[in-house]
Amino acid sequence: MATLGAYLSEQRDRHLSELKDVLAIPSISTDPTRAADVKRAAEWMHGRLESAGCTRVATHSTPFHPIVYGEWLGAAGRPTILVYGHFDVQPVDPLELWHSPPFEPTVRDGRIYARGSSDDKGQVITHVLALEAHLRTSGTCPVNVKFLLEGEEEVGSESVEAFLKAHARELACDAVVVSDTAMFSKRLPSIVYGLRGLTYLEVLVRGSDSDLHSGSFGGAVINPANALVGMLARLKDAKGRVTIPGFYDKVRRLTAAERKAFRALPHSDQALRRSIGAPDLFGEAGYTSLERMWARPSLDINGIWSGFTGKGAKTVIPAEARAKVSMRLVPDQTSAEIARKAAAYLKKIAPKAVKTTVEELHGGPAWVAPTDHPAMRAASRAIRRAFGKAPVFVREGGSIPIVASFERTLGVPAVLMGFGLQDDNLHAPNEKFDLDQFYRGIEASAFLMEELGQPNGAKKPARRR
Amino acid sequence: MATLGAYLSEQRDRHLSELKDVLAIPSISTDPTRAADVKRAAEWMHGRLESAGCTRVATHSTPFHPIVYGEWLGAAGRPTILVYGHFDVQPVDPLELWHSPPFEPTVRDGRIYARGSSDDKGQVITHVLALEAHLRTSGTCPVNVKFLLEGEEEVGSESVEAFLKAHARELACDAVVVSDTAMFSKRLPSIVYGLRGLTYLEVLVRGSDSDLHSGSFGGAVINPANALVGMLARLKDAKGRVTIPGFYDKVRRLTAAERKAFRALPHSDQALRRSIGAPDLFGEAGYTSLERMWARPSLDINGIWSGFTGKGAKTVIPAEARAKVSMRLVPDQTSAEIARKAAAYLKKIAPKAVKTTVEELHGGPAWVAPTDHPAMRAASRAIRRAFGKAPVFVREGGSIPIVASFERTLGVPAVLMGFGLQDDNLHAPNEKFDLDQFYRGIEASAFLMEELGQPNGAKKPARRR
Repeated sequence: MATLGAYLSEQRDRHLSELKDVLAIPSISTDPTRAADVKRAAEWMHGRLESAGCTRVATHSTPFHPIVYGEWLGAAGRPTILVYGHFDVQPVDPLELWHSPPFEPTVRDGRIYARGSSDDKGQVITHVLALEAHLRTSGTCPVNVKFLLEGEEEVGSESVEAFLKAHARELACDAVVVSDTAMFSKRLPSIVYGLRGLTYLEVLVRGSDSDLHSGSFGGAVINPANALVGMLARLKDAKGRVTIPGFYDKVRRLTAAERKAFRALPHSDQALRRSIGAPDLFGEAGYTSLERMWARPSLDINGIWSGFTGKGAKTVIPAEARAKVSMRLVPDQTSAEIARKAAAYLKKIAPKAVKTTVEELHGGPAWVAPTDHPAMRAASRAIRRAFGKAPVFVREGGSIPIVASFERTLGVPAVLMGFGLQDDNLHAPNEKFDLDQFYRGIEASAFLMEELGQPNGAKKPARRR
Repeated sequence: MATLGAYLSEQRDRHLSELKDVLAIPSISTDPTRAADVKRAAEWMHGRLESAGCTRVATHSTPFHPIVYGEWLGAAGRPTILVYGHFDVQPVDPLELWHSPPFEPTVRDGRIYARGSSDDKGQVITHVLALEAHLRTSGTCPVNVKFLLEGEEEVGSESVEAFLKAHARELACDAVVVSDTAMFSKRLPSIVYGLRGLTYLEVLVRGSDSDLHSGSFGGAVINPANALVGMLARLKDAKGRVTIPGFYDKVRRLTAAERKAFRALPHSDQALRRSIGAPDLFGEAGYTSLERMWARPSLDINGIWSGFTGKGAKTVIPAEARAKVSMRLVPDQTSAEIARKAAAYLKKIAPKAVKTTVEELHGGPAWVAPTDHPAMRAASRAIRRAFGKAPVFVREGGSIPIVASFERTLGVPAVLMGFGLQDDNLHAPNEKFDLDQFYRGIEASAFLMEELGQPNGAKKPARRR
C-alpha cells in the first residue's frame, strides 16, 4: 500500500473529477423546482460515502430535503468525529454575471468555478476523501468517523435540527468537524472560533387593491414603495448603527484581548475595498472592519421589489412592495427576540395608510468557542502539517446555526476547519474553490484524523502547539 | 340612408366586434419584443381609416414605432379637426392579477376588459367610427377630419413630437380633439381642461463589483439597497411634500375660483378610498384629494428592485439597486428643470461609498386651457346631446405631453373629450372600457363634428351653452 501522502498525490485527478461530478448538480434548496436536484445531490453523497468505505449509509427523508448519514466505526476504543456539511447550494442569479455556467464546473488558474464549489460541496468531500485515503492506504482509520450531510443549510437547516434532536444517541461523538468557512488568506491558514447568528425577515407593505395609474392618483394615495423605503431607511442611522429599539441590549462586547488579536491580523481596508470594487467602505462608527464583520451585529436589505421593473417607463403606483431584510447577530442576541423587535418597530413606523406584515423566514444563534480545547488544538496541528504554517484563530461573519445546536445537543466541541478563501464569491456569481485549498484540505482532514487518533487526542489539551 | 342615430344603433355589434379586433393586438410600446405587434396595431388603424372613408392614409416609419396619418377633406370651407390618439398600450404585469387575459377582450357586465380598451384604442376609434357614420349616412361630413395616431404615447411620444414639427403644415387645423381621459363619473360627464406634466427618472446605485455574502461582509461594506432606500426616503417628508430643493419654485397656485369649482364636484374621499381598497388616503397637507390629483405636483416610486427577489432566503448584499421614480408636474414647472434638480439632489444625498447615476427616461410639460373657447363650447354641446347632461370642466392628474405641443406648434386649441371612467384600471390589471361610454362616445364625436361644422363653430364663442 502507498503512503497516505503518495496516495493523495496520485489521486488528485480522480478527486477533481469527482468534485466536478457533484458540482454539476444544481441542488438549489430554496427553489421548489430544484427539489429533485437536491435529491440527486443526496444520492450522489450516499453513493460516495459507500464507495469511500462507510459500513453503514442511510438517506433519511424529511418534510423538505433529505439528510444523508454515513459511518465507519472500525476504530474501537478511539475517538469518534462527526463531520457535518451540506450538499445544497445558493441560487445563482444574476446568471448573466457568471463567466462560465454555475453548474458546468470549469477550472481556470488553479481554481474550480461552480456554485457550491466552496460552499459547501467542495469542502465537505475533503473529509470523505480523507477517510477513503486512510482506509485504502492502511486498511483502517485512526478515528471513527460519522457523516451528517444535509440539503437545507442555505434555507435554515430546519430538518437537520429536528434530526439532530431525534438521533442524538446515533450521532454521539467526541468532536464535530465542519468545513464550511474560509481561511484568513492563502498564506495565513486559520481556524474559526466564532460565527454570527441570523434573523431573516420578509416585509410586505400593501396599499391599494391593485396597481394604480400614477398620473390619475399620484399625490392623493399612499404609495407602498415610498412607504417601504421610508420604513427601511429608518432601520439604520447615518453612523451605521441599527436603530431598532433594544437591538443592542444583549450584545456581548468585544474583549480587549480580542480587539488586540484582530488588530494583529494582516488586514488592509484598502485591500478589502479593492477586492469588492466599491468606492469606499462603510460601517458602524467606532469599530474596525474585522470587528464589524466578525463581532458586531449588522443589518442588510437582501432584496427589495415593487412595481414596474422592466425596461422603459411605466407610470404605476404599485399595490404592494416587498423586501427581504436580514440581521447578523452576535452573542448574546437571540434570533427570536431580534425578529420580534424588528417586526414591532417596522409596524410601529409604518404609515397608517398601508398594511404591513413581517414574516420570519429563518434564524439561528451566534456561536463562539474556546480556542484551547484539545480538538481545536488537534485541528491546529493538522492544518500546520498540511499547510506548512500554524493557523491563527479568527471569527467569521456568516452563520452556521447548526454549529451551536451540535454543541447544545451533543455536548461536544465543534471545530470549524474551513478550507475556503475570502474571495470565493459565496452566494454571488462566479463562486470558486481554490484547488490547492481542496487538495491540502483533504490532507488536513486526514491529518486531523491522525491527530485525534493519538491517545487522548480529542480529550484533553495536548502538549504540542 | 338611415339617420345618424339609427345607423349608430344598428352598428353597435359591428363596432364592438371591431373594438375586440384591435384590442387583441399586444402593442406594448415599451417592450422591445413587442415592436412587431405595435406595427400590427398601426396596420390595423391604417386599414380602418381607409375603410372608414379617409381619402388619404399614410403610415410613416420613425426611428421607433410607426405613425399613422389619415384625412377626409371633403368639407370645403368648413373647419378642420385633427383627431389625435394612440394605438400603443402599457405593459400588463402583474399578469396573474388579470381576471381574463389582457389581450383576449372579454365583455362582462357591459364593460370590455382588455389592455388598451380605455387607454386608448377604444377611445380613439370612436372618432373613426363617427366619421364613417357621417359618410355612410349622408355621404359627407360637416367638418374636415385629420387623424394623427401614434404608437409611442406610453413611452414619451418622441417620434410624434418630431413628426408634428416636421409636418405642421399638413396637420394644420382649427382644433385638436383628443379622447384619452376619463369623465368625472358615468352620471357626470366632463371635459378636461388641465393635465399634469411628467418627469420620469431611473436611479441606479452601485456598491461593489458583484453581490457579496451578507454574512461575510455585512456591517463593513455599503449596501446599495440600503443606500437607495435612504435616498428615496428623503424625496418626500412626512407631510407628503416633495423635499427636492426648488421643486415648488415654479408651481402656479390654484386660484380661489378653481378651488371653489373643485369643491363643488361630488367627490367623496371615502368613496375614493373604498374604490382603491387602501386602509387610508395620504397626500400633501393643506390640499383636498382632487387638488392633490389634479393641480399639485407629486412624486412616486414606480418601481424598485435589487438583490434576491425569489422565494425563500438568500443572504446577499446586492451589487446594485435600481428605482424608477416619476414626478407629476403642474404649470409652470418644466420637466427638464425638475429632472435636473432631482438628479442633483439624489447625487448630493447619496452616501460616498456608492456610485449613483440618474437617467431621464421621459418627460413633458403640464397643460391648462381656457374653458370658454368656441371649440371647448362645441364639445360641451356635443357631450350634452350624447350623454343627456352638460359636462363639467375638470382637470386630470395624468400626462399627455403631446397636448401642449399641439397648441404650441399648430397654434390651435386642444379639446380633451375623454370617454373613459375613473375606475378603468389604466396602467393596471383588468383595464376596462364601459360599453355605454364607447357607444355614446361615438355619438358625441359625431355630434362634435356637427357642432363644429355650424357656421363659425370652431372660430368664436357660440350663442348656445
